[in-house]
Amino acid sequence: MNFLQKRILDDAVVKEGNVLKVDNFLNHQIDVSLLEQIGEEFKRRFADKKINKILTIEASGIAIAVIVARYFDVPVVFAKKAKSININGDIYQTEVESFTHKSKNQVVVSKQFINEDDRILIIDDFLAHGCAMKGLIDIIQKANATIEGIGIVIEKGFQSGGKVIRDYGYQVESLAIIESMNSNTGEIVFRKEAINE
Amino acid sequence: MNFLQKRILDDAVVKEGNVLKVDNFLNHQIDVSLLEQIGEEFKRRFADKKINKILTIEASGIAIAVIVARYFDVPVVFAKKAKSININGDIYQTEVESFTHKSKNQVVVSKQFINEDDRILIIDDFLAHGCAMKGLIDIIQKANATIEGIGIVIEKGFQSGGKVIRDYGYQVESLAIIESMNSNTGEIVFRKEAINE
Repeated sequence: MNFLQKRILDDAVVKEGNVLKVDNFLNHQIDVSLLEQIGEEFKRRFADKKINKILTIEASGIAIAVIVARYFDVPVVFAKKAKSININGDIYQTEVESFTHKSKNQVVVSKQFINEDDRILIIDDFLAHGCAMKGLIDIIQKANATIEGIGIVIEKGFQSGGKVIRDYGYQVESLAIIESMNSNTGEIVFRKEAINE
Repeated sequence: MNFLQKRILDDAVVKEGNVLKVDNFLNHQIDVSLLEQIGEEFKRRFADKKINKILTIEASGIAIAVIVARYFDVPVVFAKKAKSININGDIYQTEVESFTHKSKNQVVVSKQFINEDDRILIIDDFLAHGCAMKGLIDIIQKANATIEGIGIVIEKGFQSGGKVIRDYGYQVESLAIIESMNSNTGEIVFRKEAINE
């Protein structure tokens, strides 16, 4: 069991509706030393890739992406939900559905910040249905940039996103893949393949 | 002129309506090495404070807060806009108006993550009218926690937020205070007191 799986067993809470609450260390309160371990691990897993940029999506992806970026010594770009008046019209845009919030968002990245020379590592906190990930991939494809890999902190292996995105042919590295979880007992079972001492 | 003021002169763009676009290094694409310099400088300015937690607000404050947190070796909590179904009811809540987006948001922090023992450094990217900052202060006061200081990357000195928040008696450290800026000429003038070689 790796450092992240241990932390999930210690501190995450399984809630009804396939919700895994990790807001005491990952997406409300943030344990920055855990992020350092995550950054180090992604650097190891994507060591052979020529990555020049990290792309994530606001809000909870940002903290992870910024620490991971230190290990690759590259800038971060984060996709924004809804169009801000501070972003000019020259944007790549895609629609992302949120199962958690029961809403659809326009997600945008300024054309200035992704182009065909970019070799991108996508980073996000969760991969579940894959809606946000498909949106980020769509934006990168619109920019004719290259996807070098996808780094996920927690994958809900019992939902379809991971299979769909791997079937596209990308290297998807999830530091913890949850095979099943039970909100009555609190039990969390990890997929064996993801275990990495 | 300090490293940040130099970067603003090099890369920021003044837009109509008192908008300073810094989205190529601070709040869309993020230069992580610049954030390291920002973290080091806040550590220097708040070196005598016993800080055990950093509070910021999503989204663009998160990147800065996480890197600053490395210098203080403390966790980050970020206030969330609008209530997520993943946050339970036990929250501190306040209303924040956004001049940029012409909207009002409920901003929430789970009661789990701020309490009366906390000694908090607030970090944000911009201080302009001070709406977000007043909201974060309100949340900390509701939790009976202590505000050790407020670290701002860019303050619009020609708007009222900085004066109002300093008049509350807090130590506010802004790494660049803009005295005036002109969207026709692109000129940016910094307040002298903020200059720190």
